[in-house]
Amino acid sequence: MTVASEFEVANQQYAAGFDKADLPMPPGRKVFVLTCMDARLDPAKFLGLEEGHAHVYRNAGGRAAEALRSLIISQQALVRTQLELTAKQQTDCGMLIIKEEEFRDTVKKNTGEDVSHIPFLTIKDLQESVRTDVELLRKNPAVLDVPISGYIYDVKTGKINKVDV
Amino acid sequence: MTVASEFEVANQQYAAGFDKADLPMPPGRKVFVLTCMDARLDPAKFLGLEEGHAHVYRNAGGRAAEALRSLIISQQALVRTQLELTAKQQTDCGMLIIKEEEFRDTVKKNTGEDVSHIPFLTIKDLQESVRTDVELLRKNPAVLDVPISGYIYDVKTGKINKVDV
Repeated sequence: MTVASEFEVANQQYAAGFDKADLPMPPGRKVFVLTCMDARLDPAKFLGLEEGHAHVYRNAGGRAAEALRSLIISQQALVRTQLELTAKQQTDCGMLIIKEEEFRDTVKKNTGEDVSHIPFLTIKDLQESVRTDVELLRKNPAVLDVPISGYIYDVKTGKINKVDV
Repeated sequence: MTVASEFEVANQQYAAGFDKADLPMPPGRKVFVLTCMDARLDPAKFLGLEEGHAHVYRNAGGRAAEALRSLIISQQALVRTQLELTAKQQTDCGMLIIKEEEFRDTVKKNTGEDVSHIPFLTIKDLQESVRTDVELLRKNPAVLDVPISGYIYDVKTGKINKVDV
């Protein structure tokens, strides 16, 4: 069975018990969550989110630079309210392992492609990356002035630990 | 109580029952899920994902162009295996409502900023956007040749409906 087929089976079960047909489009809790795509993270579970609560944006490393388009849309198109932001990275982070130059060489070796135009936004220090990302959002004039919190998720304990930002 | 404080309380409950300390970093089901950040979507729930199963990438509209960095990292840095991809958009999609030019004007009005350098990747037709995104991934030489499926999630029923891609 392919993963897609497994997804279809799981989805039939979800749809069979579905009772969320009337949720409005804007996030009920007026919050934009920015977090890593890491498989070990389930933001809905570790933050107590239900369907309809929050915009949940995820990418490799939970990096803010790439989230600007989505954040601006979240703040100024769909919700028309201000949002509280929560940036997250995880301990034991895959982005700490890869190095920009080395990784470009790997991709070149694997595929023959020169990806030097893509910044991979690798991370040297987790705390620093959270601070850098929060600062980037605070300083960007296209981002509305809203409270921003930063946390690091610990994959060993399931805990979020606040970063002083 | 701020949203961040509410998250911290919810997280304490999650961490208290946490039993996933030994999950490996690579996704157990070797799959990269690309989906929209829409608040009404919980990919873990509607696809039957547990912590450790899949890389879950989310942005406004579930657009592939912006997901390339994360996908290349997923395929070639962390997992070193091939992944099945599933691109998703939802019905009643916020990205259908906004228009690129109008939205740029809105941001300019709200913040004074010229954001004409940001493509907002708005959507005119859901089926077409899924096909465009799958094609973009299939044609990109830096992306490994893996099976890709496309679905549209129906926010009224909780069902994923396959798109012929």
